[in-house]
Amino acid sequence: MKSTIILDPHPRTVDLLFSKAELRRLRSLGKVVSHDGERMPDAEVDRLLPDAIAIVGQTTLLRERLNRAPKLRAIINVEGNFQPNIDYAGCLERGIYVLNAGVAYSYAVAEMAVGFALAMARGIPQADRRFREGKEVYGRISNEESFLLRRKRVGLIGYGSLGRALAPLLRPFGCELYAYDPWLPDGYLVEQGLSPLPLRELLASCTVIYVLAGATTDNRAMLGREELNLIKKDSIFVLLSRASVVDFDALTAHLKTGRFRAAIDVFPEEPFARNHSIRTLDNVLLSAHRAGGLAESYQLMGEMVIDDLALICKGLSPVRLQRANRETAPKMQSKPVTR
Amino acid sequence: MKSTIILDPHPRTVDLLFSKAELRRLRSLGKVVSHDGERMPDAEVDRLLPDAIAIVGQTTLLRERLNRAPKLRAIINVEGNFQPNIDYAGCLERGIYVLNAGVAYSYAVAEMAVGFALAMARGIPQADRRFREGKEVYGRISNEESFLLRRKRVGLIGYGSLGRALAPLLRPFGCELYAYDPWLPDGYLVEQGLSPLPLRELLASCTVIYVLAGATTDNRAMLGREELNLIKKDSIFVLLSRASVVDFDALTAHLKTGRFRAAIDVFPEEPFARNHSIRTLDNVLLSAHRAGGLAESYQLMGEMVIDDLALICKGLSPVRLQRANRETAPKMQSKPVTR
Amino acid sequence: MKSTIILDPHPRTVDLLFSKAELRRLRSLGKVVSHDGERMPDAEVDRLLPDAIAIVGQTTLLRERLNRAPKLRAIINVEGNFQPNIDYAGCLERGIYVLNAGVAYSYAVAEMAVGFALAMARGIPQADRRFREGKEVYGRISNEESFLLRRKRVGLIGYGSLGRALAPLLRPFGCELYAYDPWLPDGYLVEQGLSPLPLRELLASCTVIYVLAGATTDNRAMLGREELNLIKKDSIFVLLSRASVVDFDALTAHLKTGRFRAAIDVFPEEPFARNHSIRTLDNVLLSAHRAGGLAESYQLMGEMVIDDLALICKGLSPVRLQRANRETAPKMQSKPVTR
Amino acid sequence: MKSTIILDPHPRTVDLLFSKAELRRLRSLGKVVSHDGERMPDAEVDRLLPDAIAIVGQTTLLRERLNRAPKLRAIINVEGNFQPNIDYAGCLERGIYVLNAGVAYSYAVAEMAVGFALAMARGIPQADRRFREGKEVYGRISNEESFLLRRKRVGLIGYGSLGRALAPLLRPFGCELYAYDPWLPDGYLVEQGLSPLPLRELLASCTVIYVLAGATTDNRAMLGREELNLIKKDSIFVLLSRASVVDFDALTAHLKTGRFRAAIDVFPEEPFARNHSIRTLDNVLLSAHRAGGLAESYQLMGEMVIDDLALICKGLSPVRLQRANRETAPKMQSKPVTR
Repeated sequence: MKSTIILDPHPRTVDLLFSKAELRRLRSLGKVVSHDGERMPDAEVDRLLPDAIAIVGQTTLLRERLNRAPKLRAIINVEGNFQPNIDYAGCLERGIYVLNAGVAYSYAVAEMAVGFALAMARGIPQADRRFREGKEVYGRISNEESFLLRRKRVGLIGYGSLGRALAPLLRPFGCELYAYDPWLPDGYLVEQGLSPLPLRELLASCTVIYVLAGATTDNRAMLGREELNLIKKDSIFVLLSRASVVDFDALTAHLKTGRFRAAIDVFPEEPFARNHSIRTLDNVLLSAHRAGGLAESYQLMGEMVIDDLALICKGLSPVRLQRANRETAPKMQSKPVTR
Repeated sequence: MKSTIILDPHPRTVDLLFSKAELRRLRSLGKVVSHDGERMPDAEVDRLLPDAIAIVGQTTLLRERLNRAPKLRAIINVEGNFQPNIDYAGCLERGIYVLNAGVAYSYAVAEMAVGFALAMARGIPQADRRFREGKEVYGRISNEESFLLRRKRVGLIGYGSLGRALAPLLRPFGCELYAYDPWLPDGYLVEQGLSPLPLRELLASCTVIYVLAGATTDNRAMLGREELNLIKKDSIFVLLSRASVVDFDALTAHLKTGRFRAAIDVFPEEPFARNHSIRTLDNVLLSAHRAGGLAESYQLMGEMVIDDLALICKGLSPVRLQRANRETAPKMQSKPVTR
Repeated sequence: MKSTIILDPHPRTVDLLFSKAELRRLRSLGKVVSHDGERMPDAEVDRLLPDAIAIVGQTTLLRERLNRAPKLRAIINVEGNFQPNIDYAGCLERGIYVLNAGVAYSYAVAEMAVGFALAMARGIPQADRRFREGKEVYGRISNEESFLLRRKRVGLIGYGSLGRALAPLLRPFGCELYAYDPWLPDGYLVEQGLSPLPLRELLASCTVIYVLAGATTDNRAMLGREELNLIKKDSIFVLLSRASVVDFDALTAHLKTGRFRAAIDVFPEEPFARNHSIRTLDNVLLSAHRAGGLAESYQLMGEMVIDDLALICKGLSPVRLQRANRETAPKMQSKPVTR
Repeated sequence: MKSTIILDPHPRTVDLLFSKAELRRLRSLGKVVSHDGERMPDAEVDRLLPDAIAIVGQTTLLRERLNRAPKLRAIINVEGNFQPNIDYAGCLERGIYVLNAGVAYSYAVAEMAVGFALAMARGIPQADRRFREGKEVYGRISNEESFLLRRKRVGLIGYGSLGRALAPLLRPFGCELYAYDPWLPDGYLVEQGLSPLPLRELLASCTVIYVLAGATTDNRAMLGREELNLIKKDSIFVLLSRASVVDFDALTAHLKTGRFRAAIDVFPEEPFARNHSIRTLDNVLLSAHRAGGLAESYQLMGEMVIDDLALICKGLSPVRLQRANRETAPKMQSKPVTR
């Protein structure tokens, strides 16, 4: 008898992740039972667990539930994080893969990261606004605060799958790439073509600063008033991963002085306060958590999920999704932003 | 006695092109006589010609004047075009290099080209406008018309120095690059990693279309209503070189239907009509001839000018600036846009 | 009290792996106890296990021994394989990392792989031999069997760390890269810029064929007489990983016909039979298991070992070395070649 | 009436340069008259000149002959040099393009350049010789003098079309690229990703040294005993362009000490002295002028010739072949090596 693959992808949907052709490929691996539009009811999950080989979703899977799933080989969170809804230690003991699909967002976020930096280096949205108001300034005079990315220093705060997707896009600009990531050894960064730099030196020396670190137990408000104060005049601060890494009030205060520029995709609360003063600043580019969540990301996510499930079903090891690590999974704090 | 180098850079200025250190380097090559703020008066030009080894600027140099300059080795237009103010045939006969400095703009234009495509693929300025109005839409829902550059077909109309600077920036996005350039053989394009494509096929198949061709006697309004009609739904049309290549009214009409998107840096007249209807379209990004004219471009231009002058003074051939070709220089029609 | 790090690197030595500065870095992580020149005696291992946090070497670590090592966090084989001297399942249950250092060889092997292909595409060693004999042929006539790597099809049999190091070196040659790896999904290969191909199609269509697959329970003599018969005239067969993947007698027979060429770094037994007929063939390049084992590889290996130990000691996850996977580690059969 | 294209390619042949399909393409451009196997007789050349639009070959074209060719637009030497058989000044005055096809060799030479460096860094031919003698040494012990190209300093003496083809092949090895070329400004080299270096510093600091400079009036025996003495122990000296750049006796003397290594493709006379002592040195790789002259190079050369002729016939400027420069063409001294 075929084993069961539970699809419980809420807040994603089955269609978002899988084309019809891909669903057929998934069905060739096992008996697929799916639930859309809300989380799968507990009773149904419990009923399916004894035959389940894999669960795709954010289903709660604490120890007593895992005990009811003797065949379980993989839990795949179709999101970019690890949440405390899973007994990670229990899974590791039993060799159950706990995987997240955040890597599927990385192309989309990396492209947005380049777009944001270019937008703010060249004043693209500002110039467009002026033009719409009939107040455009032509040519060189309009470029007094513009600069090229070419040969500039770019610093990445956090170097995971986003950084690995972003770095190759920046290379042909001739940028010098720097990274701060306390979870990675210097030699690893050097091998990837980046120069390691302490956080404060990175902030003080880079012309473009990318915040790509997921929220962890260690990095809450890591970028406070003092750290942000190190940023050079006219540098570009790009916030793409999680707002909690930054003291948002301090960031707002700094931006109001106009000293540096920012492009911001994530906010402390979403939707963000209607009257927040950051909404009117000319040196800020605002984006409502739009960097990763495109149709193309979700289709890639679906492909990765099926690819890894197919490997696991063949008695091989998954290669596309990111595995939860014993040490770091419990530190992960990124969660769906409060809405 | 040292030969004279005439600097007549209007509408550029000496300071824009040369730092103090670079001016010293220039002075080591000859007696530098400069005139700023307007074109050098004819009488002064005429007085200097007998000893002039090089002229940097858009000085008129027709046959009778060239005859008065027996030592002349180089005429360097500190612009991106060749104008009919020079007796090209006479210069070629005498082995006088006629050079233009357009290549110095290519990094800046290429970066803008990437920024424009990303802006329009991801709705960056539109989302920023919504956010400022307090009407932002969060996450996936806001991305229904967004797409990645990754693996898309990108077509370059015209493949000169701008295209050569742009292609490497697009490569790591995994784009398939196509080009239409009637002045270049297919084998040349293939060697550079592009696939040649007839104009109409390029328009019909590419998701991002860059107009990078300078204005020539051959390409006026080459992209008319019918050609623009070939562009696919949701494609991005990026106009960066000269507006005359396009039938601007036809372009406006197409964009009003919303069928495709555009980013436009050059206009038929500049300043552009205050009440032109294109100024209000949501699917258009507007930029007032800002792509190339940055301080960094002019400093690079100055470096290139001195480098090539130094070679010429050493009895070597220039390598950094673009030479006027007997065949193509007279076809060049790009000129400072009517203001 | 500091935990113990056991160094039992035989057949490597401590000096080969660690410079003095690196040894100091290692000592900062724990109490280092090392044994050089032979395997550490069982009694000493047993004495050290109760305090051991990590073991670097090929020490036998079956279940009863693991039970004596309650603090153990990592077992690092300073070789490129996983051997059956470890209770892998027990380690996975307890969350003990089992790591191998094969990735440290990948730069060296990848460079050799390029060198071998160029040598055989251009007849470099053959022409050198002729020259030494005073029988060299000059210029074009000598190149009748030479070809460029440029734009040729290159096939990788096995795409692990060696392939990942080799692919970027081949890219600027304009090669089309193909791979056959039954442990990897097509989508993964495509994402890395390779086209997946079934083994027989790869053999039949590629001009350079690299064997990079480690020995496994599945691939013994996978390339037999019939498969080798598919190789095109004048193609280059490069054997770099393990000889057991190939039916060596069949390979020798094929090479004697002169139909294709080979570069061979690994042999069924090493030292290889003194009188083997392959030693005299002009279309073969011979190399005595020299591709990976350079001082630079071992120094990199040492750096990687310390980097990952440092992470583990800080409560983080290793990132540089390769982890044993539950599924694939038991399939690994590469072992020190019989000598 | 169609203009005449004279093919006088000796010592090349028509078939070597043009496939049947390419010949058809050539014939579509004009009336093709060819002579194979020896230089076209003077009388025939003289007869054809009045209608000739282009001459492909090394035909002597001094002033009086040029005067008989009023329609002549291009002289294309299907070799990699400019010889004193042409009235260059006369051609420039009349706007006749004088082109050479050396760039067509650049892919082949660049690949050989990488192959030579890898061969000598890893002892590939030496190890192959040992193996054939039954004296091979296995593994690490055999690699005591081996090193990786990875991250090493590589110096290019001369940076023309060969260097431009070679640099991209070396980039993914992580090499630092340096160049010495007195005909090029530093800024040009920097823009191409190389660091300029004075000749003596380059020799003293680089681990791989490529001689890529064509013979000129300026560089005869530029690398003499003293310069070669600067080369570091175990560095690799690769001689690929012309032997006259080096004092060959001094080079031989240095190599006999074993201090550094060499790969040599060009010799002071070819065929080279049968008993020359360099033929027996273990630290030297010998190649009989084989780097460029492959079928693939000649087919590319033919394609480039037709492409540029097609442009010229359409009233456009050539783009694929290298133009003779007024200043540098007379300095070029590379000629078919004395045989």
